Amino acid sequence: MYECNQQTVTIQALQRMPYYVQQLRIMQENMVQTVSAPRIAELLNLNEVQVRKDFAAVYTTKGKPKTGFLVAELLHNMEELLGYYNINEAVIIGSGYLAQAIISDERLKGLGLRIVAAFDFSLDETEKEIHGIKVLSLDKISNLCRRMNIHIGIIADSGFQAQVVCDQLVAGGIISIWNFTEAHLSVPEYVKVKDENFTASYAVLTNHLKKNL
Amino acid sequence: MYECNQQTVTIQALQRMPYYVQQLRIMQENMVQTVSAPRIAELLNLNEVQVRKDFAAVYTTKGKPKTGFLVAELLHNMEELLGYYNINEAVIIGSGYLAQAIISDERLKGLGLRIVAAFDFSLDETEKEIHGIKVLSLDKISNLCRRMNIHIGIIADSGFQAQVVCDQLVAGGIISIWNFTEAHLSVPEYVKVKDENFTASYAVLTNHLKKNL
Repeated sequence: MYECNQQTVTIQALQRMPYYVQQLRIMQENMVQTVSAPRIAELLNLNEVQVRKDFAAVYTTKGKPKTGFLVAELLHNMEELLGYYNINEAVIIGSGYLAQAIISDERLKGLGLRIVAAFDFSLDETEKEIHGIKVLSLDKISNLCRRMNIHIGIIADSGFQAQVVCDQLVAGGIISIWNFTEAHLSVPEYVKVKDENFTASYAVLTNHLKKNL
Repeated sequence: MYECNQQTVTIQALQRMPYYVQQLRIMQENMVQTVSAPRIAELLNLNEVQVRKDFAAVYTTKGKPKTGFLVAELLHNMEELLGYYNINEAVIIGSGYLAQAIISDERLKGLGLRIVAAFDFSLDETEKEIHGIKVLSLDKISNLCRRMNIHIGIIADSGFQAQVVCDQLVAGGIISIWNFTEAHLSVPEYVKVKDENFTASYAVLTNHLKKNL
């Protein structure tokens, strides 16, 4: 396939792909056959050179770039690169609003995310369920992940000691961690942490206010 | 104050600040007086030169960098830059799990975020409230924002037409938009959009699995 190209895709490019995918799908629905990098750059307000580079990194069809990219082909390449539609099982730490927002997110479900268990403080002996998913006590994290061969862990509650929870995930064989807490997690090199720091995002918003009000 | 320095702080640096703040607070609690950039770089697993540059951009005290940065001063500079503890009123679009997660987020509250109203489809005539915040119908967005002089809008539900909602926010005087939908929003130049694209983040996680399993 496009193994060699795939190596050259940066995290930044990867994060732009879902936006391209969205535009390409609209084009496909409207029977558009080919598209140019400048057109997509214009629609998404991105740099033309950057878009061309991103497209070239994933596009498998060899040919003259001047005739434009085939929409169907480009879309397929990107979806494959993104690993869309492969089922990926995950566990989630937390059972509050944020955890429930992620568990019930239809977009993520549509992309293949299957959350198989949630973990929280065990408040009592009664079994709890959210959206059909069992909520288990925190001490069961590593055992369950190992037993079920899970590789994605989502830390969706800042009420826990994030590093402790993270260590349990790593011990259980998790190699991709989605971290919604403010904590800077320390992990082995083979583990990828994707931080979602609301506090840092909020700083961007308030800084813009400070400069412009 | 440090107006001229502030101009040089990039979005990337700004987003690293909350991590510095967290470390500096721990040091302050432990009576540490001065700190070096390499020490913080080591703790946060960041590049030393980058940390030194970030510190220099916010630090107001003139002096010899070789003696290290004063923890209290550096912390104060960063907190002020981040606009922490200034009350900022905001509206939120959506009243589902994600909206509730944001409304009830204690970290954001602690930083001064005050959400004054939520907006959703008006399902019936009865007034709805979530966490003590009124849920109003979507057509009231621009009027309320203008009337209450609100400048931050949070789009926390992908069930709406994000661009339409965004236009209403801009029309109501919003200049900072926190966008949790996948949509690429088109806004005037003076408006800052901070995207929180869960789909794009998920792509980073699954791509890591693909490469490492």
